[in-house]
Amino acid sequence: MPYQLHYWPGIQGRGEFVRLALEAAGAPYVDVARGSAADGQVLPALLQCLNNPATARPSFACPVLVDGKRVIGQTAAILLYLGPRLKLVGASEADRLWTHQIQLTIADAVDEAHNTHHPVGTGLYYADQKAEALRAAKGFRLQRIPKYLGWLETVLARNPKGGKHLVGARLSYADLSLFQLVAGLRYAFPKASQRALKKTPLVQALHERVAQHPRVAAYLRSERRIAFNEDGIFRHYPELDG
Amino acid sequence: MPYQLHYWPGIQGRGEFVRLALEAAGAPYVDVARGSAADGQVLPALLQCLNNPATARPSFACPVLVDGKRVIGQTAAILLYLGPRLKLVGASEADRLWTHQIQLTIADAVDEAHNTHHPVGTGLYYADQKAEALRAAKGFRLQRIPKYLGWLETVLARNPKGGKHLVGARLSYADLSLFQLVAGLRYAFPKASQRALKKTPLVQALHERVAQHPRVAAYLRSERRIAFNEDGIFRHYPELDG
Repeated sequence: MPYQLHYWPGIQGRGEFVRLALEAAGAPYVDVARGSAADGQVLPALLQCLNNPATARPSFACPVLVDGKRVIGQTAAILLYLGPRLKLVGASEADRLWTHQIQLTIADAVDEAHNTHHPVGTGLYYADQKAEALRAAKGFRLQRIPKYLGWLETVLARNPKGGKHLVGARLSYADLSLFQLVAGLRYAFPKASQRALKKTPLVQALHERVAQHPRVAAYLRSERRIAFNEDGIFRHYPELDG
Repeated sequence: MPYQLHYWPGIQGRGEFVRLALEAAGAPYVDVARGSAADGQVLPALLQCLNNPATARPSFACPVLVDGKRVIGQTAAILLYLGPRLKLVGASEADRLWTHQIQLTIADAVDEAHNTHHPVGTGLYYADQKAEALRAAKGFRLQRIPKYLGWLETVLARNPKGGKHLVGARLSYADLSLFQLVAGLRYAFPKASQRALKKTPLVQALHERVAQHPRVAAYLRSERRIAFNEDGIFRHYPELDG
């Protein structure tokens, strides 16, 4: 039975962290809301998954992963579940927890990136909070991007198994999420990211190495990879970069 | 060896979710930054924990839990670690993951509560982003508080073991975190919370039941419970309520 990923069809969003794990592992999955209507897939199936009154353990929001009878929400919880199954995390409890801690910190960075264009609220359009966004983005560019990338650099530099992976000597879902964070920052804030990445060569190198991973590279070239756009988390509004 | 909790000494903040778990379980712990200087504790010890160049796996921010040689950051990851050890989570993988998913969703609500008074950036004072805060708080009050509490109500209503706990028939760290979320919302947004809680009687009842749990009640009466204040996540600015 393939995994079912339920996520909004037009954006990478938080679902992309799950897609990257499934793709890097070569795991069979259906991206439900992007399937064909003839298969009974697409958006209504996604909404049914969120709003089905028969679900004993309903998720607050997408992404949602369905694995047989298991229904799991929250990106980091999904990766916690998938990690051992896809062999994208170490075997020890310590390695699993550390990988999860890194994932949660990357998720915080992603939340802050989203906040730059929606500081007042997700219920309003960007155009209605542009003045606030200009202020919010400044702090994100000057303080937060360097702080997050600097922390990831430290994690890599201190890895006793070498600076090629965040945890141990093998690819983990945290590496994939670092790739996606850097890809998103480069898209949304090309100037500010470029400046920060010059000071974090291990982060930049890991980002590039993940992009060249055979299955990841094939995915990135495929139509399954949705292009970054201004409906997603990482949006390129030139006025917010600098 | 008691657990060591490293967190800012003047606020409940995210550390409170860890404190509540330790207190509810009656676990021995040292709140490092609030210890006496004679013991070599207080703030420098906390900063040393965060910035020690010898830490192979450094945390991005507080709270940090130290358990012997283990050093764990990120509130949800700390609770994932403590849950089984403090018997504050079910035994099955499914129950553990579901409890964690609820915790992550509560953490999202906490982040959004913080964003109401710091929409532009954590690096600026509230006074410098008050206009933005007034707008951000409105959406939080009208849409987000009812949505989060409504989701928790649904989780309780659908629990096959009855609506007294979020997961199964026993107290879990998710119940404790629900208590803290509701306590914080009632402090920061008394009017808006009151309105929302009228529609979520199971949430309100669980909040009150947790407050009466003997060890939790003793903790809340003690000096170890820091009072809510306007340096923390939940701040009572009357102009943001309504």
